Amino acid sequence: MSADIGVTGLAVMGANLARNLARNGYTVSLHNRSVERTDALLEAHGSEGEFVRTESLVQLVESLERPRRVLIMVKAGAPVDAVIDDLLPLLDEGDIVIDAGNSFFEETRRREERLREKGLHFVGVGVSGGEEGALNGPSIMPGGSEESYRTLGPMLEKIAADYHGEPCCTWVGTDGAGHYVKMVHNGIEYADMQVIGEAHDLMRSLAGLEPAAQGEVFREWNTTDLASYLIEITAEVLEHEDERTGRPLVDVIVDSAGQKGTGRWTAISALEVGSPVTAIAESVFARSISSQRELRAETNRVFSDGVDSTAADEEFGPEFVEDVRKALYASKLVAYAQGMDMLVAAGEEFGWDLDLKEIASLWRAGCIIRADLLDTIMKAFDGESSRLPKNLLLAEEFTEALNECLPAWRRVVAAAAEHGVPAPVFSSSLAYYDSLRRDRLPAALTQGLRDYFGAHTYQRTDVEGTFHTLWSGDRGEVEA
Amino acid sequence: MSADIGVTGLAVMGANLARNLARNGYTVSLHNRSVERTDALLEAHGSEGEFVRTESLVQLVESLERPRRVLIMVKAGAPVDAVIDDLLPLLDEGDIVIDAGNSFFEETRRREERLREKGLHFVGVGVSGGEEGALNGPSIMPGGSEESYRTLGPMLEKIAADYHGEPCCTWVGTDGAGHYVKMVHNGIEYADMQVIGEAHDLMRSLAGLEPAAQGEVFREWNTTDLASYLIEITAEVLEHEDERTGRPLVDVIVDSAGQKGTGRWTAISALEVGSPVTAIAESVFARSISSQRELRAETNRVFSDGVDSTAADEEFGPEFVEDVRKALYASKLVAYAQGMDMLVAAGEEFGWDLDLKEIASLWRAGCIIRADLLDTIMKAFDGESSRLPKNLLLAEEFTEALNECLPAWRRVVAAAAEHGVPAPVFSSSLAYYDSLRRDRLPAALTQGLRDYFGAHTYQRTDVEGTFHTLWSGDRGEVEA
Repeated sequence: MSADIGVTGLAVMGANLARNLARNGYTVSLHNRSVERTDALLEAHGSEGEFVRTESLVQLVESLERPRRVLIMVKAGAPVDAVIDDLLPLLDEGDIVIDAGNSFFEETRRREERLREKGLHFVGVGVSGGEEGALNGPSIMPGGSEESYRTLGPMLEKIAADYHGEPCCTWVGTDGAGHYVKMVHNGIEYADMQVIGEAHDLMRSLAGLEPAAQGEVFREWNTTDLASYLIEITAEVLEHEDERTGRPLVDVIVDSAGQKGTGRWTAISALEVGSPVTAIAESVFARSISSQRELRAETNRVFSDGVDSTAADEEFGPEFVEDVRKALYASKLVAYAQGMDMLVAAGEEFGWDLDLKEIASLWRAGCIIRADLLDTIMKAFDGESSRLPKNLLLAEEFTEALNECLPAWRRVVAAAAEHGVPAPVFSSSLAYYDSLRRDRLPAALTQGLRDYFGAHTYQRTDVEGTFHTLWSGDRGEVEA
Repeated sequence: MSADIGVTGLAVMGANLARNLARNGYTVSLHNRSVERTDALLEAHGSEGEFVRTESLVQLVESLERPRRVLIMVKAGAPVDAVIDDLLPLLDEGDIVIDAGNSFFEETRRREERLREKGLHFVGVGVSGGEEGALNGPSIMPGGSEESYRTLGPMLEKIAADYHGEPCCTWVGTDGAGHYVKMVHNGIEYADMQVIGEAHDLMRSLAGLEPAAQGEVFREWNTTDLASYLIEITAEVLEHEDERTGRPLVDVIVDSAGQKGTGRWTAISALEVGSPVTAIAESVFARSISSQRELRAETNRVFSDGVDSTAADEEFGPEFVEDVRKALYASKLVAYAQGMDMLVAAGEEFGWDLDLKEIASLWRAGCIIRADLLDTIMKAFDGESSRLPKNLLLAEEFTEALNECLPAWRRVVAAAAEHGVPAPVFSSSLAYYDSLRRDRLPAALTQGLRDYFGAHTYQRTDVEGTFHTLWSGDRGEVEA
């Protein structure tokens, strides 16, 4: 029996992808370093479809029809290279090696180049949706050669999440593009969670809304244009009562979030390609601040905690809650706009012709940031490329919404600052919007200073050229 | 005649360092790829001290006393490696190669390792102060082996800037530590300029203060605890009238600032070592936003420009200007605190035992961020390491000042948000301060969400261990 695809690495994600493939009618050859895991999978789920049991990579490769498709699902980093090293002598020209793990895109670029030189296809695939998604339909972001997608694509589309009949899977670009898009997805996910956290904190600290009551608010918000998986589960988490203490679970969870992952990569890559992703970077930083527990405890001791009363005469009732909803929506929109901007910048840097509409379509179902908003974003980027908005905020689908949110957004950021509730992404996103829309920025002064101390020169608004003022001379201007 | 040190690469920075060395009594051997530059230097400044003219690296090396000291001052990147390649066969064990250019610290680490294996010393030296500083006394941040500093240090200390009799030069740490400290200096410099720009913009947009009038304000501020080189030259730049138009020069300079340099490296490295440098990152992003001129023009067309009038009943008079001064001071302090924090994190990551007091001392004169504040920062980090503040904001030298600035800082950030004046670093720094001092952060909700969708687990405030709620099961809690 000849299998359609082989999967090596049968921890939960690999096992679930294999089962998803089998359930969709493909014959799946299975391999794991320790065969016990293969047997456990076969025993528990062997009846879900056609599986081939193998005990070695040699057997796995031998069991596959050509061109062979081998999907690697092992820990990112050196283990991926180790499996590739073992596979290489066994494969023939035209075979396809797929890395569906959370690899860093630069590593995927390197591996793709290495395998391409040997006549093999290497496909880095971003998969989002966790264990559940892997089994029932994840969002799939495949990179690699277009040619490889012709034979691999139909399989991936079949197992992908479905958004009203459309698969959340399409070829996104060559070499590392798939893992890159997945990385940016995760960066946006960081921002998405951070703005939810800021909304939660403001409603708690200023409006005095307890978690359970906030659950209802988020449930209500989930019927608005904020509707999304993360808003939905925020309601669930906030309403959850800790069985041990009877208190809201969020009140007993340690308030330190890890950040050594894809969010950090996203911010770093954005800096490298020169794209200002303030919302994502602030979200990563917010997590690392939250982890500085000793420093936080001491700062808390030294400086008074709690809400300041500089504007204690204000009231924070239902209108404030609606303001917060609008601030959340606008800030979230900025995070997506920045993520999309960085995709454009990265596309130019790495030679990918990324289609923002297609990318938005991939995120509509299966993944963590799935949201109705993405369908609207897709529409915003629909049409001829020359007529597309330069930035998501400029899409006619969003300009009106932004204008409507603006006064509330300003009030919320001001209230946060006045009352000592940190809202780094709300405020940073507003500053981003205001920076973009302003006629003049103080960067002109920056340029003047740089010319003063380092002769870095400047351009003029009225004359072409590059100029320098002789600051330590007669202060005349010379053309540089 | 045997020279004390050789300099190769005689563009302005190299030439000025060579002259500085010669003026301080050292015999300096000169080399440049094209000998014309060497001769031009000798003709113009040969009488300033003892110089040795050489026409090749071989001659340069032969002219030096042992252990030889060769200072490379060429463009960062491949040119440095090219010079090293040419030098290696000419040098003997114990000789010292100095890279005084703007090299990336990882490259310095690599080069140091390479030369160490050959028994040579490689010293990456951060030099700040521009052309003027190089000639008359820069701030010098040398890395490399402690042994190399014993023979090189006295020379560097002699040519360094002088702060009330103390040289702004000391050994900072092994391999890339010198270039790292210089990089962080530049990151802080980005933030320093950005907060000045925000103050300038707020006073212009809200208080209606024209540049010339602001010159006076900054001159006045330079007599307060803000006293610094950058504040001083801000007054000069703001007061400067463009000779071509008669308008303030800042109004004719294009308001786009470049950012492809050390500021970006700083933010990237901070992300890599997990240190939250929000002020530096926002400053880098502010520059890249300013450079998106087409996007800005279109956003300006689509969204109304100018100051919003949601709080137009307020008045922005002299009290507001004083508020802005306090906001600037507090935000600047945060930028320095974050820069120092990232030095600590980097020290742990790269095995450097960085002395924050010594580093602050290096920046008191000669460099761009030189400021009275640094003398106070030095005092804050003076004493036994176990008793040092965990963060600059916690130093007793600053807690009172921060408390005094706080209400003004809050008012300014709120006004900026309400009136549409972008103040990304003012607001981000305030959010940083508020995040650190708060008892609870919404990161607890983030952890709850991550546990919900990805079984990432969480810790509890009341019991040791790692926990997971069975969200899609009976919602009981299990220990992970």
